[in-house]
Amino acid sequence: MSQGRVSSGEAAAAFSVIGKPIPKRDGQEKVTGFTQYLHDLTVPRMLHGAIFRTRFPHARIRRIDTSRARALPGVVTVITAEDVEQQPIGLAKDHLPLKGGASDGRKARCIRDEIAAVAAESPLIAQEALEAIEVEYEELPGVFSPEEALRPGAPLVHEALDSNLVNLRYQFAHGDVDAAFSRAAAVAEGAYRLNYVSPAALGTMAALASWSPDGALTMWSTTQVPFLYQKDLAEALGITGDRVRVIQPPIGGSFGRGLDVYPVDVITALLARKAGRPVKIAFERVEDFIACPTREPCEIRLRTAADAQGRLLGRDVHVTIDNGAYVSWGSTTPYVMLSTSTGLYRCPAVRFDTTIVYTNNPYSGSMRGYGNLEITFAVEAQMDDLADRLGMDRVDFRRLNANQPGDITPQGSVITSCGLTRCLDAVEREIQKPLPQPPEPGWKRGVGFAGMFHVGGGARVYRSDGCGAILRMDDFGQVTLLTGASEIGQGSETVLAMIVAEELQVPLDRVSVVNSDTAVKPWDVGCHASRTTFVAGNAALRAARELKRRLLAMAAELMDEPPDALELVAGMVRVTAHPERGMEYDRVVRAGHLKEGGRTLVTEAFYDPPTQMLDKNLRGNVSAAYGFAAQAVLLEVSESTGQVRVLKVASAHDVGRTLNPLIAEGQIHGGIHMGLGYALAEELVVREGQVLNPQFMEYPLLVASDMPDIVVEFIETVDEEGPFGAKGLGEAGVIPVSAAVANAVKDAVGARLTELPLRSERIFQALQSARQEGRR
Amino acid sequence: MSQGRVSSGEAAAAFSVIGKPIPKRDGQEKVTGFTQYLHDLTVPRMLHGAIFRTRFPHARIRRIDTSRARALPGVVTVITAEDVEQQPIGLAKDHLPLKGGASDGRKARCIRDEIAAVAAESPLIAQEALEAIEVEYEELPGVFSPEEALRPGAPLVHEALDSNLVNLRYQFAHGDVDAAFSRAAAVAEGAYRLNYVSPAALGTMAALASWSPDGALTMWSTTQVPFLYQKDLAEALGITGDRVRVIQPPIGGSFGRGLDVYPVDVITALLARKAGRPVKIAFERVEDFIACPTREPCEIRLRTAADAQGRLLGRDVHVTIDNGAYVSWGSTTPYVMLSTSTGLYRCPAVRFDTTIVYTNNPYSGSMRGYGNLEITFAVEAQMDDLADRLGMDRVDFRRLNANQPGDITPQGSVITSCGLTRCLDAVEREIQKPLPQPPEPGWKRGVGFAGMFHVGGGARVYRSDGCGAILRMDDFGQVTLLTGASEIGQGSETVLAMIVAEELQVPLDRVSVVNSDTAVKPWDVGCHASRTTFVAGNAALRAARELKRRLLAMAAELMDEPPDALELVAGMVRVTAHPERGMEYDRVVRAGHLKEGGRTLVTEAFYDPPTQMLDKNLRGNVSAAYGFAAQAVLLEVSESTGQVRVLKVASAHDVGRTLNPLIAEGQIHGGIHMGLGYALAEELVVREGQVLNPQFMEYPLLVASDMPDIVVEFIETVDEEGPFGAKGLGEAGVIPVSAAVANAVKDAVGARLTELPLRSERIFQALQSARQEGRR
Repeated sequence: MSQGRVSSGEAAAAFSVIGKPIPKRDGQEKVTGFTQYLHDLTVPRMLHGAIFRTRFPHARIRRIDTSRARALPGVVTVITAEDVEQQPIGLAKDHLPLKGGASDGRKARCIRDEIAAVAAESPLIAQEALEAIEVEYEELPGVFSPEEALRPGAPLVHEALDSNLVNLRYQFAHGDVDAAFSRAAAVAEGAYRLNYVSPAALGTMAALASWSPDGALTMWSTTQVPFLYQKDLAEALGITGDRVRVIQPPIGGSFGRGLDVYPVDVITALLARKAGRPVKIAFERVEDFIACPTREPCEIRLRTAADAQGRLLGRDVHVTIDNGAYVSWGSTTPYVMLSTSTGLYRCPAVRFDTTIVYTNNPYSGSMRGYGNLEITFAVEAQMDDLADRLGMDRVDFRRLNANQPGDITPQGSVITSCGLTRCLDAVEREIQKPLPQPPEPGWKRGVGFAGMFHVGGGARVYRSDGCGAILRMDDFGQVTLLTGASEIGQGSETVLAMIVAEELQVPLDRVSVVNSDTAVKPWDVGCHASRTTFVAGNAALRAARELKRRLLAMAAELMDEPPDALELVAGMVRVTAHPERGMEYDRVVRAGHLKEGGRTLVTEAFYDPPTQMLDKNLRGNVSAAYGFAAQAVLLEVSESTGQVRVLKVASAHDVGRTLNPLIAEGQIHGGIHMGLGYALAEELVVREGQVLNPQFMEYPLLVASDMPDIVVEFIETVDEEGPFGAKGLGEAGVIPVSAAVANAVKDAVGARLTELPLRSERIFQALQSARQEGRR
Repeated sequence: MSQGRVSSGEAAAAFSVIGKPIPKRDGQEKVTGFTQYLHDLTVPRMLHGAIFRTRFPHARIRRIDTSRARALPGVVTVITAEDVEQQPIGLAKDHLPLKGGASDGRKARCIRDEIAAVAAESPLIAQEALEAIEVEYEELPGVFSPEEALRPGAPLVHEALDSNLVNLRYQFAHGDVDAAFSRAAAVAEGAYRLNYVSPAALGTMAALASWSPDGALTMWSTTQVPFLYQKDLAEALGITGDRVRVIQPPIGGSFGRGLDVYPVDVITALLARKAGRPVKIAFERVEDFIACPTREPCEIRLRTAADAQGRLLGRDVHVTIDNGAYVSWGSTTPYVMLSTSTGLYRCPAVRFDTTIVYTNNPYSGSMRGYGNLEITFAVEAQMDDLADRLGMDRVDFRRLNANQPGDITPQGSVITSCGLTRCLDAVEREIQKPLPQPPEPGWKRGVGFAGMFHVGGGARVYRSDGCGAILRMDDFGQVTLLTGASEIGQGSETVLAMIVAEELQVPLDRVSVVNSDTAVKPWDVGCHASRTTFVAGNAALRAARELKRRLLAMAAELMDEPPDALELVAGMVRVTAHPERGMEYDRVVRAGHLKEGGRTLVTEAFYDPPTQMLDKNLRGNVSAAYGFAAQAVLLEVSESTGQVRVLKVASAHDVGRTLNPLIAEGQIHGGIHMGLGYALAEELVVREGQVLNPQFMEYPLLVASDMPDIVVEFIETVDEEGPFGAKGLGEAGVIPVSAAVANAVKDAVGARLTELPLRSERIFQALQSARQEGRR
């Protein structure tokens, strides 16, 4: 893999580890098979659980007969909604973990619905027990799209409500949007349709629950938000949060899936409670495709207005979301869609509204990029369309409207560091490099661009957006960081260790990170919104600064110098004016500790970014910094088949400062992989509420040979608030890809496709239609 | 079990949890079988190890053939000293974990010596592999007592040394001892012989080692000193201490055994390193009796002088220790013997010397009470003998010489709180209560007394005697204490939680304690010298005080009051002057945290007692407080058989303050059980270097039906430095028992026995000799 070029804001040479391409610390254990994922974990006396789901997306449950399952040798426990006490879960608390009970109208509302669960001595027995469960259904007519669901007289997903409209609406207005459109020189208008995709993590959903005799629960979970999970899971089980301990084994992919408590979590705990033994449930692949939360399907109707000089005047956005059977994070993506509608490029007037609708489809969840891929696909399509209409260069048009430091968006986002223009310049330069070969006959080349705007300094979605850090330096010179942050494969362990090592000037391998147990780690809101490096990094940095202060004070006593005459350089405490007078830092620790009246070095810090929650008008500066990026895609389209070959993706990112270019580039590569899948291939096909392609054979994740050349460039703007100037990056790579691909397809063959994925047949049909139009 | 009476120094009613008889928090899990001891633990891919030991206590190893063992199916690794890199271990670094190598003179020096080790897929295969190992020995003449070992021309245990005398000697002198004896009105003189006993913990010695791909070692260990173990184990393996993580599963008894790194620890790690897989070794019972460190065998020659008024004038002590083949903690017990020689009762002149000798016997280790049982047996025998000679009441004689607050001992121990006189009063009162029945014919009753002096406020054996604490209060109102202290069954988890709950005025079940992983817990010197409640308790208390300060500051902001107008009472923050104005403490935490600019509550503290290490003259105030006790034993002796029946033990303890009378009494009961075993029954019989009784059938641990009535009383002196006034107690119960029993036997039948255990045949022989003397 080529290493991303860094366009530095200042000399990175001033740092000892920051800016260095250091491999992820969990890498070796992962590639050597040493890592024990939750799937590998067993605890003594553990049972294996499995979940029985409805066959029909909308049905009355007439009868559940579990007697045959209970009688199977090796089956320890079978539960249904009638056997357990459970509280509603989900964002709107609109479903119980186990469905089909009397309190719930004895209904199944989508094919994910959990009707029963078993715990048995082996996974095979558990599966056999599922097959022995008999359920008598009365199939009900369902609604499988927002249009159907909103028709008068449509079947109600939740009969207790008087409509299928979800009680969740994002309405925003800033500036005079109608005036903007009336005085526009050019208007783009379109409806963009985005479909279900699955995170398709190699590690399927899993949970392991163990109760102590006094009723405390230990959960091994792949959650990304352990402290919120602790609270939510406890509520679902009717206990207090302090009775739940969450342990986070290494994760085989999560991508936002882990932002909530799901039925599987509660059911695993209920089974374990009933059985009096630990229980693990791990989804098989097919079950994972059916029951894992997805990216939400939606339709974005967007209009954009620009004046004759190419300045954006206004945007008018309406988002319709197929909510599925229960409200989840997937239906809150307008929060981010609004942010990009108001924040990506300067746009003085914005109107935004939503329609979120219950259907009998599977419900979605949060997924990396979370609303931003979808809205960027729409916004950037119209950036191209407007440039074309105005006869402007597409990149110039973007540069003209690019955000600049000091801007405040219509929502009140305060743009401090901002490298969008430099990102656009960089990808333009890169994508214009000539290729050695012309395209084959019958293939057309095209180049597409897209910009990106995303939170980069936390996101105050909850009342606290903070993270804690506890730091210990021991007699061996080992530094241990207990961080609230969660490692979900993104490399946070490595980067947090680097931040500490840099500040303390100790070798990186002397810093260890503890981050996987709520019983010991300090609080954190969780791993989302690209916030870990920024927020957890700032907490770690503050704890390190305090530890450094105490270490220098300790050294000052030993060396008989005032603390401010000392400095910490390359593992040595030195007298600044006499660098030859120094002591190894670990000698200072031991000398300060191992004596009468000694002290040890332990510090703590809590960092909550100086931000605001959105007010009732959806205004507020939710992040302490914003990340920017631009991507350019070079591809070829076969005019005869619609097939697309992506040749190159150039991706430039304003990350404030590149703390670790290797990991940062890995994040971008992973994001581009996921984004290209979203753009070109992946779709979880749901028809009449059923998932039609729940296997990797039919769900085409891109493989290595599908991947184009990727060139990454980091633009350093050195954010004032970020740790060593860094901003968040985790989601940046995936967000603009589909927009840039669609723009490149248009550039190549003239067809504007408005629905993802851009599969060959869709492009072929678009080309056919265009030809027919042309012939007419 | 009756609950110990508490003679309170002040009203315990002022406390909410301190002083309450709260059950140990690990109790329920232990009695319900939920607890996973190290023996129960498995980790993925784990192998089972076993150790091959020498057949001869002194032998040249001519040849080791492991080829048959290696060829056994299921055997993964076999190692000998020639296959591995190892560094010397033990207190004097005088042995390698695996013996028999060329660098080591190809010798076995005692029957514990480890010659080879295997790791296999199952424990049975590992045992089979041991049997397949062939070793050719040349038996060497051995030395099996200090006398033999010091004879000119005796075989040398370590040929590299020019003598069997260990380079370790404790010499102390204070006052004019010879003058004291020359002007004495009464002198007692005797030689007291103490034999091997085994801790005989129900959980045998065990270790589990797992190496990560990058060469870091995780050890699951029953060590009591995890941070010293981390350092010592690393040194033995030739790595740095920061590469070793120590995890401490629940312990099935330790009793001082866990104060060192042993060959089993290093060998387990070496096997795991060689096999590339985790390895566990757990001793079988016979192996545990043979290879577990014991209480040291020794002879104490003591003379004590008193004046005609009954005041002690001087003591002259010489201790000879059978060191066994390698120097261990067992040979450092004179450190404590000296302390009691100078500290138990006021004694103005003391001379002390030692002879510590290598033999080909098993080496001993540290064991609960650590030298103090042995010296107290001698000192208290002479207190009785002197009283008898002076015609004084034995208790009055002790009261006359009892330590008092403000005393400074000849070693420089500063007696602050001291309840010895009250302890003597209490046990005298209790033991004088009349019994309903007279003794059976042929049985004689006797009463014996003994006092006790022991460190009760840490013991500065290492340069630091400190302990760290980290405290977190979370949104659920849960308080988590990360303590350096180790729970070894003594109840420290419970007591530390009580200290925190009391200071913070939160319900006890809201306080959890994390204490079993060096990767997260702060430093502590370890669990020894009855120091945990005092030192770890003080650290926890300091962290709690700071947390309380911050919580009140947080509340002050919310309630718009100055912090010092607020108080924390019963889970509420209240305005002191207006108790009706209050907020639940957890509401304060959430309100202070879940807001813009919020904070979380994490504090830390490190407490190192204000004490000194002994100087080269063995002077210094090593403890911040001293514990005192007195015991009285009522027993009957059969004149015809020498059989002893103990009827009652009264035990009174100055513990400063009784933090938890239930756990405190449990400690005393356990100590008395162990002390009675030492006095009457237990002896690990070692002859010619071989252990003759390595089974519970032959090693008579006392059982429940052997136990007498026990009456415990706690004398509260409310120590100024102790947490809530408490002093250490862990070893106090065991120390005076054998002395009081021997004094009671003398009281009953007139025979002064000077060797333990006081088995029937010894008493019978003493009675026979006395009768023969009488007849002559």
